[in-house]
Amino acid sequence: MTRDVSHVTSESNRLILEERNSIVTFAAFDWENLKMTKDTNIRISLPAVCFVWQIAMIILFGVFIRYDDESDAHWVEYKKKNNISTHLENNFYYRYPSFQDVHVMIFVGFGFLMTFLKRYSFGGVGFNFLIAAFGIQWALLMQGWFHSLDTEDWKIKIGIENLINADFCVAGCLIAYGACLGKVSPVQLMVLTLFGVTLYAVEEYIILELLHVRKRCWGSMVIHAFGGYYGLAISWVLYRPMLSQSKHLQASAYHSDVFAMIGTLFLWLYWPSFNSAIADHGDGQHRAAINTYLSLAASVLTTFAISSLSKKHGKLDMVHIQNATLAGGVAMGTASEFMITPYGSLIVGFCSGIVSTFGYHFLTPFMERKLKIQDTCGIHNLHAMPGVIGGIVGAITAATASESVYGREGLIQTFGFEGKNANRTVNVQGGYQAAGLCVAIAFGLVGGALVGGILKLPIWGDASDSNCFDDEVYWEVPEDDEESGAVSLHHNMNHVSSK
Amino acid sequence: MTRDVSHVTSESNRLILEERNSIVTFAAFDWENLKMTKDTNIRISLPAVCFVWQIAMIILFGVFIRYDDESDAHWVEYKKKNNISTHLENNFYYRYPSFQDVHVMIFVGFGFLMTFLKRYSFGGVGFNFLIAAFGIQWALLMQGWFHSLDTEDWKIKIGIENLINADFCVAGCLIAYGACLGKVSPVQLMVLTLFGVTLYAVEEYIILELLHVRKRCWGSMVIHAFGGYYGLAISWVLYRPMLSQSKHLQASAYHSDVFAMIGTLFLWLYWPSFNSAIADHGDGQHRAAINTYLSLAASVLTTFAISSLSKKHGKLDMVHIQNATLAGGVAMGTASEFMITPYGSLIVGFCSGIVSTFGYHFLTPFMERKLKIQDTCGIHNLHAMPGVIGGIVGAITAATASESVYGREGLIQTFGFEGKNANRTVNVQGGYQAAGLCVAIAFGLVGGALVGGILKLPIWGDASDSNCFDDEVYWEVPEDDEESGAVSLHHNMNHVSSK
Amino acid sequence: MTRDVSHVTSESNRLILEERNSIVTFAAFDWENLKMTKDTNIRISLPAVCFVWQIAMIILFGVFIRYDDESDAHWVEYKKKNNISTHLENNFYYRYPSFQDVHVMIFVGFGFLMTFLKRYSFGGVGFNFLIAAFGIQWALLMQGWFHSLDTEDWKIKIGIENLINADFCVAGCLIAYGACLGKVSPVQLMVLTLFGVTLYAVEEYIILELLHVRKRCWGSMVIHAFGGYYGLAISWVLYRPMLSQSKHLQASAYHSDVFAMIGTLFLWLYWPSFNSAIADHGDGQHRAAINTYLSLAASVLTTFAISSLSKKHGKLDMVHIQNATLAGGVAMGTASEFMITPYGSLIVGFCSGIVSTFGYHFLTPFMERKLKIQDTCGIHNLHAMPGVIGGIVGAITAATASESVYGREGLIQTFGFEGKNANRTVNVQGGYQAAGLCVAIAFGLVGGALVGGILKLPIWGDASDSNCFDDEVYWEVPEDDEESGAVSLHHNMNHVSSK
Repeated sequence: MTRDVSHVTSESNRLILEERNSIVTFAAFDWENLKMTKDTNIRISLPAVCFVWQIAMIILFGVFIRYDDESDAHWVEYKKKNNISTHLENNFYYRYPSFQDVHVMIFVGFGFLMTFLKRYSFGGVGFNFLIAAFGIQWALLMQGWFHSLDTEDWKIKIGIENLINADFCVAGCLIAYGACLGKVSPVQLMVLTLFGVTLYAVEEYIILELLHVRKRCWGSMVIHAFGGYYGLAISWVLYRPMLSQSKHLQASAYHSDVFAMIGTLFLWLYWPSFNSAIADHGDGQHRAAINTYLSLAASVLTTFAISSLSKKHGKLDMVHIQNATLAGGVAMGTASEFMITPYGSLIVGFCSGIVSTFGYHFLTPFMERKLKIQDTCGIHNLHAMPGVIGGIVGAITAATASESVYGREGLIQTFGFEGKNANRTVNVQGGYQAAGLCVAIAFGLVGGALVGGILKLPIWGDASDSNCFDDEVYWEVPEDDEESGAVSLHHNMNHVSSK
Repeated sequence: MTRDVSHVTSESNRLILEERNSIVTFAAFDWENLKMTKDTNIRISLPAVCFVWQIAMIILFGVFIRYDDESDAHWVEYKKKNNISTHLENNFYYRYPSFQDVHVMIFVGFGFLMTFLKRYSFGGVGFNFLIAAFGIQWALLMQGWFHSLDTEDWKIKIGIENLINADFCVAGCLIAYGACLGKVSPVQLMVLTLFGVTLYAVEEYIILELLHVRKRCWGSMVIHAFGGYYGLAISWVLYRPMLSQSKHLQASAYHSDVFAMIGTLFLWLYWPSFNSAIADHGDGQHRAAINTYLSLAASVLTTFAISSLSKKHGKLDMVHIQNATLAGGVAMGTASEFMITPYGSLIVGFCSGIVSTFGYHFLTPFMERKLKIQDTCGIHNLHAMPGVIGGIVGAITAATASESVYGREGLIQTFGFEGKNANRTVNVQGGYQAAGLCVAIAFGLVGGALVGGILKLPIWGDASDSNCFDDEVYWEVPEDDEESGAVSLHHNMNHVSSK
Repeated sequence: MTRDVSHVTSESNRLILEERNSIVTFAAFDWENLKMTKDTNIRISLPAVCFVWQIAMIILFGVFIRYDDESDAHWVEYKKKNNISTHLENNFYYRYPSFQDVHVMIFVGFGFLMTFLKRYSFGGVGFNFLIAAFGIQWALLMQGWFHSLDTEDWKIKIGIENLINADFCVAGCLIAYGACLGKVSPVQLMVLTLFGVTLYAVEEYIILELLHVRKRCWGSMVIHAFGGYYGLAISWVLYRPMLSQSKHLQASAYHSDVFAMIGTLFLWLYWPSFNSAIADHGDGQHRAAINTYLSLAASVLTTFAISSLSKKHGKLDMVHIQNATLAGGVAMGTASEFMITPYGSLIVGFCSGIVSTFGYHFLTPFMERKLKIQDTCGIHNLHAMPGVIGGIVGAITAATASESVYGREGLIQTFGFEGKNANRTVNVQGGYQAAGLCVAIAFGLVGGALVGGILKLPIWGDASDSNCFDDEVYWEVPEDDEESGAVSLHHNMNHVSSK
């Protein structure tokens, strides 16, 4: 953006012009600096990764993935054979509405929640879109191999439940992205997702198949605790000592905060579907939705309370409202299907809202200063801690379950005390739940540290400390009104001076 | 935001700077004034209210609220006992998708519809979030006591239908918030909600249980007529003679109008679910959705027509499009389940769109000038009037119902002519519907006046007339681009002058 | 905000002030020009069209449209007569959730996708709202006459499936709007919709009833190919040679690009519902959803890849991300219900993402320069081309279908080889699919050319070339912050000079 002002005689005018330029060509300047620093050109690496991995997906899908009985054209016959009376018994009708809600959470919820930064909204919602779209494909394969590989023909038969689980699996990686928001390149994010999904599938296998934690209810720990610590470990390895150089961009603008509320609300609203999507048919899904609904409501009130308490004049902080209000859903992830009772759900939401908001106020700054963990979205407060709470709540609720509360069949059904677990007691079950939580955290920390090491390699095209949180680095950013203003101003100058 | 420009020698430059500062530090100035005026510090009151009331909820839920047969782990046995063939018969599968749509309307719909003000988007969507989250809990209790208290064990058994009704109940209070938008403190809103939900539950009890207005179809009057007049009465009591002092903020910005369209569209789209969510299984839900869909479509066309007619050059007014297009849904609230016929629905939408748009053009200014009612969102046009229309339409449609149209069983089913109402005639039913409408309006006006009186107390931390419609009062608002621009400009100045 | 500038003497300051005015009163200037040019006053025409057509709808609905068996109060008896065991068998419960998703796509998806222009967001989402609301009513009639007219009583019996089809039908017109975005008046759009829906219904009749292309799966061609070419033909006829005059407005702003992502994501997320909404109960809907989900995921990766490849420094282009990522859903429109296999779906998405992104990069500029087709939203890349791909894929998949893959009953069911088509072979079917595609394109091109001719008449109040892409023309646009600053500043100037 060159500008000829030579014929402006009066010093004062030059001065004023410079001033305005300094405002309007703000972004442009950044971009200049950028060129002098780290190479962020991803013109080869990003397309290469996208193409190669997508082609790999196609091949692997060709080898391994088929439709399951309920999505295959043979359903009509299958239906007859198992004399199923109506098409409605097709799992599609039990799960699809919840699936769509979860799907919205993954792409709109997480995506817009990460648009809160002044000049990183494109990256927030855009890269979320990219890695989620890749992640769900890879998750269908990884989870399929570990959970639903048909040993007859070595094929993975997918149906609606697989899609839901794939969305869940990706959620773990998007949480991790939250900690790295604005500091990593899309290529790094693809790598983060590749390994994240892999780790998740292995972890899930251990927790569900080996520890036999209740299959339907592991959300908090498998997804949130893992995803949270995975992301924190990565951003700990990728610590940027000079990040303060781009401090002016690590803030929200008025509009970007409103955009973020779109994400918050869709996450908050659909969380009951998130926790009930693959719960047991009937009372399981019903109860999971009610418990989550109540827990979320309670965490909203405590979030507002602590947020107001923590500021001068009791002013509310958008960061708290955008994030901590969701803690109730995370903390309900494991126990949502249990008979935790409505007031039990309120108590869980009550506590998690407080913990999460305090986390944003005290812990995040502390972690950055002392532990050298730069957690852009504060996932430690929204996912890691509430995830742990959720795991503990789940363990306790399981350990205290009784036949009088669940009824004989209800107990068996809810905890899956069948087959080789037929004679498991609830206390033992509680213990296994706790063990599962530890596994999740361990996988997150260790896995994250290793992946972080890989991402530290200087080949990924990430930005220099002075260019973080800036969409200019990876996106064609439109000239904004001020700039176009500047242009017309310049035109004007010449016109005037040509008199 | 003080700025030292003493060393700027050239008088002219100082001038320019002052100008720009005056523009960019606009908000800052307001804030200065603010401090000199009313005390809006809610650091004690808001947290106190949130904590105490949330703890009260937990205790009351502990005493009164349990899962119902369909969300309790005993469902498996219940199912056997009542030989229900499939899990799908669990009410969850009839209602949950509609519930989620209603849920989105309450939080995203109402929330974003109230982001239209230039500098009150945080308050619009944020406070809506807070009071709705509190309201649904309180509504579960109040409605439970009045409608579904099990007299055996004095417990309220909740299932998906209770959640939907709680969302409905809260809608009434959010409508009332619309009239007070920008003029009340969050603490006042909590009080408004506490009493609003209480009044709503009592009113609902009278209309449904005593007048036995058709249980399934009372939306327009119970929710909209009540909520509308409740809000109008409150803002009549809280009249602010000097409100014009914050006139410059009582307007929309380009972006905030687009944000508001998010709310409008989700309300418009999901209104068929709103009216059908608790309609009778089968044709009831089916017909309610169709009627509402058609009525809404018609009101969009008449809204655009009147909006264009009412302005110079036929330009459209966003306020009309954002609100009046929804009138068709409100007006359909009562009759949606009746056999009003598709063209009947179109006629209802046609009229309500016209009435509502005229209301925005003529009535709202008139009410503010003459009746001293400051109705920020124009709820009188969107909810009160269409709600009354809906009530009347419902009464007429009920009174003209016949066995030939509904079929013998259909008639009984639709109007619940069973038990003690077995020998009620449709005309009598129509009369009762009309009576119900009057009850709703009476509750709104009287209740609103009383609650308004309580909210007038000087203890609630509301803003002074000159600081209404400004998020600065209750929120940490981020520095905007212009400001940061100004900062770098200032920095630039010093740098220049220091040469 | 008073300001004393009495001491402004020096020429230089006047200059500076002028400059700023030139920036800040930018829009205002436009508006001035506007008044001197074409008459865009629609104060008579728009209301007239809305009123007359809405009244016509009411009359026609009164004559023709009634509830069908499942939405009529006689359902209770109907249910008994056909001994249907449960209310769940009411089609409402199979289709309603998908219907709501489609509904969101039409109004939020298409609407917000068209908000990407800097100063045309009102028109994008607002006019989309208007014409869709009219279109669905007209579509219910047109499609009813052609597909579901009960020859006994000459009535059209509507249920949930009709609503879904009406939404589909309108989609064709909204696609066409995309090509004309910012260049036509709302009155022209109403005309475009009136004829668009009519053409669509006739075309659909030919393709489904005469060619008997599989009833359930024709989306790509009937909707997207038709809609795409319809819009392109129109904007070819309405070619504006001097459009460059409003070039400064034919661009996005940072925030408007984020708004557009709301549309993109809801379209992307709900596309599986779009393709499965009216698929066969059971495996049909299930499989359609899975195939679309996979195809969309693949097109996201290839879109990012090509977008990055096509730009300096590998920077991503929001236009590509907002649009080409959806190509996978379009291309899956026809074959989604077939046994195309999961990897087949990925391949379709892979290719369509590439084709679409290349289209935006090369074809759109080429078409504008050489073919004189100004395609604002690039519908040729998002709908026309992928629609054709989809049609071809559908034809091939149909032609290669076999009993071993579908199972005997599955084959009959999926392709509707019943009644007079009982002895149709898959190859013949494939041929008919291809024929159907040609019909769709022909209808689009010829119909579009004719309608374009009508829209060329000078009576529709469209803007002059210098005022395109500007909401000022048809909307009351709020003063923006800069402007309000400028105004007071400008006012200030006069006050000064008047001394």
